[in-house]
Amino acid sequence: MFIDILIEKIKIMNNVSIVGLDPKLEYVPLFIRKKAYESYGNDLKGAAEAIWEFNKNIIDYIYDIVPAIKLQLAYYEMYGLEGLETFTKTIKYAKEKGLIVLADGKRNDIGSTAESYSSAFLGRTVLEDKTKAIFDVDALTINAYLGVDGVAPFIDDCIKYNKGIFILVKTSNPSSGQIQDETNQQGQKIYEVMSSYVNEWGSKLIGKYGYSSVGAVVGATYPEQAKIIRKIIKNSYILVPGYGVQGGKSSDLIEFFNEDGLGAIVNASRSIMCAYKSDLWRNIYNEEQFAEASRAEAIRMRDDINLVLIKR
Amino acid sequence: MFIDILIEKIKIMNNVSIVGLDPKLEYVPLFIRKKAYESYGNDLKGAAEAIWEFNKNIIDYIYDIVPAIKLQLAYYEMYGLEGLETFTKTIKYAKEKGLIVLADGKRNDIGSTAESYSSAFLGRTVLEDKTKAIFDVDALTINAYLGVDGVAPFIDDCIKYNKGIFILVKTSNPSSGQIQDETNQQGQKIYEVMSSYVNEWGSKLIGKYGYSSVGAVVGATYPEQAKIIRKIIKNSYILVPGYGVQGGKSSDLIEFFNEDGLGAIVNASRSIMCAYKSDLWRNIYNEEQFAEASRAEAIRMRDDINLVLIKR
Repeated sequence: MFIDILIEKIKIMNNVSIVGLDPKLEYVPLFIRKKAYESYGNDLKGAAEAIWEFNKNIIDYIYDIVPAIKLQLAYYEMYGLEGLETFTKTIKYAKEKGLIVLADGKRNDIGSTAESYSSAFLGRTVLEDKTKAIFDVDALTINAYLGVDGVAPFIDDCIKYNKGIFILVKTSNPSSGQIQDETNQQGQKIYEVMSSYVNEWGSKLIGKYGYSSVGAVVGATYPEQAKIIRKIIKNSYILVPGYGVQGGKSSDLIEFFNEDGLGAIVNASRSIMCAYKSDLWRNIYNEEQFAEASRAEAIRMRDDINLVLIKR
Repeated sequence: MFIDILIEKIKIMNNVSIVGLDPKLEYVPLFIRKKAYESYGNDLKGAAEAIWEFNKNIIDYIYDIVPAIKLQLAYYEMYGLEGLETFTKTIKYAKEKGLIVLADGKRNDIGSTAESYSSAFLGRTVLEDKTKAIFDVDALTINAYLGVDGVAPFIDDCIKYNKGIFILVKTSNPSSGQIQDETNQQGQKIYEVMSSYVNEWGSKLIGKYGYSSVGAVVGATYPEQAKIIRKIIKNSYILVPGYGVQGGKSSDLIEFFNEDGLGAIVNASRSIMCAYKSDLWRNIYNEEQFAEASRAEAIRMRDDINLVLIKR
């Protein structure tokens, strides 16, 4: 089961943080870009190859210390088919290195269409005489504004292929309250209503550690809301974006975890990818050592969060 | 402006219906599939080529009678990179034929990421010394569960590049009410709250016919709700899925339109793509004439809806 494998990796590595590979071209060190343009031309192909090289190097330097990576689909789609080829190569390489791979696509649609999205990311696509895994990640983020019809096909594939989903509950951005904080006539916020659904939908998929392969997304920027959500979805893992650049602090993270020190994974993207440019690391590592800087920042993040978890 | 161009095409063609190209492999006539497998192998490449051939033929038979097509991204992603290549070829071909092209991707994320999605579909991606259009469709569907932060980048590109968006308000599926019909403390349903936002966000993009390039998605299966939504978003076009196979009837469509006979486009996918298999057309057209059957059904649909619009 997805969630059991994730929890076992978290325990072995003593690390609840994951690395987001959301690589805008400008994050890639100039020497890598130049080399890629020389071989593949100064266009989408060169850009996608530079990003692939960047991803590959970072994976080489973090695969033994972090349990999972998260790939944000938007940053691959923006480089077209070439970018999506880098997306597939990155998934394959990361899995070979033993990393769990989450795709952050926030996919959503009516049932029949959600089935197709699920085939693309979690399940299998039916061809004439066979079925075929396509992007084949371990878990996908989902937007459930359409209700259970749009979620059920993903859950079916989670059961069939040992995959996971993380459903948006309370997102990290400033305007997330416009819909998510609306209060219904029973006094529940929409994010609480969504939490109850996540809890219900996840009940079929609870693994041996008591956690479900149906998780929730709750931004690090909303610890007060996390406290409420954590009580509703005791059995769901929370994927927590927003640590680092978006402003989420490690001291705020305690609300996302259960007493057992489990129940959440914390993602950081830019702070790891661009560690070599940061005030903290740029005097220690040069541009050529960008992946070492990413490793150093990933370790710093791991220890920063572990300190908070131990203290309580 | 996107919406002006759309309205002008609707007027010229006297047609408020659009064709959804959501081509599962099983919709493609067997003779096309066989031919594609002979040339490209019985795998993803062959499947994607069969779908491309299918799309191309349907476009050839409908481009002069319908104003726009809608491509559902899930049905291309499920065939991997090869499927997405068919997606890009279909966009290019349809635009050459003068069709307006909508991508139905229901994309959504926080601001910085929404920017990247917008670069992929509506805007431009920044490379070293240039910017580049990627999928470059005319309009994209958006899920606004995250609020304005996740919508603003798309609106910026709508202004800059004459594009449009359609925001999910009330979706056509049975479970859409789980979140969308929740009632807030002021007595408004969430789909009404969303409608008000669509109205507000669209106010910057109103064209010469009084309509905005920021539209809404409301399912044909919910005419009662459409009546309410139509009053809130007077200036927005409504993209109406769910006609035909999903159960929406033409008599229900009147609520989606304004007095001027404008204000909505009605999508049908399976009923047009699979017309050659339908009870209505399969005795008139054989499998080789699948595209003629699609044309016949597209005309029938156009006239069916026009009859309702004229009657009122």
